[in-house]
Amino acid sequence: MATPWYFVALLLTILTSSQGILTTLSQSDGGYKYDYATVPFLAEVFKLIISGIFLWREMRTSTSTPARITKDWKSVRLFVIPSLIYLIHNNVQFATLTYVDTSTYQIMGNLKIVTTGILFRLFLKRKLSNLQWMAIGLLAVGTTTSQVKGCGEASCDSLFTAPIQGYLLGFLSAGLSALAGIYTEFLMKRNNDSLYWQNLQLYTFGSLFNVARLIADDFRLGFEKGFWWQRIFDGYSITTWLVVLNLGSTGLLVSWLMKYADNIVKVYSTSMAMLLTMVASIYLFSFKPTVQLFLGIIICIMSLHMYFAPPQTLVDLPVTNEAHSKTLKQVTVEEKTDS
Amino acid sequence: MATPWYFVALLLTILTSSQGILTTLSQSDGGYKYDYATVPFLAEVFKLIISGIFLWREMRTSTSTPARITKDWKSVRLFVIPSLIYLIHNNVQFATLTYVDTSTYQIMGNLKIVTTGILFRLFLKRKLSNLQWMAIGLLAVGTTTSQVKGCGEASCDSLFTAPIQGYLLGFLSAGLSALAGIYTEFLMKRNNDSLYWQNLQLYTFGSLFNVARLIADDFRLGFEKGFWWQRIFDGYSITTWLVVLNLGSTGLLVSWLMKYADNIVKVYSTSMAMLLTMVASIYLFSFKPTVQLFLGIIICIMSLHMYFAPPQTLVDLPVTNEAHSKTLKQVTVEEKTDS
Repeated sequence: MATPWYFVALLLTILTSSQGILTTLSQSDGGYKYDYATVPFLAEVFKLIISGIFLWREMRTSTSTPARITKDWKSVRLFVIPSLIYLIHNNVQFATLTYVDTSTYQIMGNLKIVTTGILFRLFLKRKLSNLQWMAIGLLAVGTTTSQVKGCGEASCDSLFTAPIQGYLLGFLSAGLSALAGIYTEFLMKRNNDSLYWQNLQLYTFGSLFNVARLIADDFRLGFEKGFWWQRIFDGYSITTWLVVLNLGSTGLLVSWLMKYADNIVKVYSTSMAMLLTMVASIYLFSFKPTVQLFLGIIICIMSLHMYFAPPQTLVDLPVTNEAHSKTLKQVTVEEKTDS
Repeated sequence: MATPWYFVALLLTILTSSQGILTTLSQSDGGYKYDYATVPFLAEVFKLIISGIFLWREMRTSTSTPARITKDWKSVRLFVIPSLIYLIHNNVQFATLTYVDTSTYQIMGNLKIVTTGILFRLFLKRKLSNLQWMAIGLLAVGTTTSQVKGCGEASCDSLFTAPIQGYLLGFLSAGLSALAGIYTEFLMKRNNDSLYWQNLQLYTFGSLFNVARLIADDFRLGFEKGFWWQRIFDGYSITTWLVVLNLGSTGLLVSWLMKYADNIVKVYSTSMAMLLTMVASIYLFSFKPTVQLFLGIIICIMSLHMYFAPPQTLVDLPVTNEAHSKTLKQVTVEEKTDS
């Protein structure tokens, strides 16, 4: 893959950021005219089609190395797990919101950054330096800072006054969300299968779970509105289609990152996107800029630099580096003892 | 000096933190019963007496190396400069507050952390690593975060809506405040004179400037209340005396740090003290804890660790360190070419 990961990460940041803006623009009179549950379903179908086309192209054109495809059921069935985790996550999320309000839920969502780091270490056995751990903590602090309610804004007394179950569920939600990401990374990297073949499996299960959700909704409503396929495009506008395309595209980029980069890159990408959306909202939706947004942006940019900058550029003193010269001295000493 | 700098810094943090609390406790009915201008004057006199006693003891007991004392007027006159800078600073501060409100002024005060870092580099030629620069920036961001007004708190619309002169003066104020600190460090370290002799010169000028201020106040009031020495202890309580002793002691500790540590240590000490005061106020004055205070504390502790932790403990990966092994490889290669 010649595409550098930071280019994909940047594209993901921009698209994720537009996701929030497009979703807001797709609303009319403060609500959705269309059934929002149809959006992730259509996005899954979009990703499935795109991956299918790419896989077909790859299989047709690959000359030297044919596209690797593992069709063993023992392997295929693993791709159902992310969908299962997301299903549990959605229900935990729903339960959490019965205890805590949306602002508290949003603030607690930043825990996902830290839980991703922890699972990244525990399950994928990836080593991080102390500075990188601090950077991850700082990213969570930065995104939280940007979300702190400004003065005059209503409903802030509710913060940290919810029952303990709410916080436990919020923590579980952050853990499940991270687990889904970490498990997907494990799936994508466990063998050299073609990315598109892996996507095809992932999105097939994704589409099935989304259909199941639409059917379940139909049952819950007692088929009042008929079957889901009869009203799937009801209330769709150009903007709604853009939301679908955007959600599908970000999904494909995340898959790519899971195979060729990692979850931490994805977390930075989506965190930066959140800040970008807030800045864009100042211009687009006359969102009032706050000091805390400004501070949050500085913190996150520092965190980004701390995590990704080559360590030596961070700690080398401009003129002399004691630690480095010490290492050299030790080596020289060993050399002398040898001869 | 056997006392480690971090012990002095910790003591300074605790005393500076109690300073804010004692000052609040010394008020009655929301105001001062005593003339607040007498407090810094008496603190200067206290420091002068203590330094005098210590110098006398040092001169009497020093056997091997006598206390070094430079009495040259060319050297002594330099000690008036910190007092002069503080005089200008106080006036600039007063002018700033005619343009901006106290919360904005408080927020802008955090700029002092960054200006201290800059003057530390420019005037004292001290080198800092990129990570240390980031740590200093982060400390300013952290203290600012802790001060962001919570929801429901009044008068926050005023933030960043003051005339441009207000911000320029606020910036000048931060620069002067940093300059006073940096210049004092320069004075204390420029020769091996006894700390107590240096203090004696510093506090003599300090006392004189404070007397001048009290006299100026008398003139401004048209001697309505008589001469300053007639009413110097009016309204003093035990707490007021504690404020004086505390201010004097913190001054002595700062002097010590300027000679044996540096301005950055002092800045960390006073920033941590500010946070400690806020935490203590939750218990003492039923101050409402905010999310931003919690976030600010995390940011400042991370900044502290980033600045003072040995760089290698921050960037070394737990198992393998590519950069390090690369250095070793290069050395090995050079070794081979040599032989």
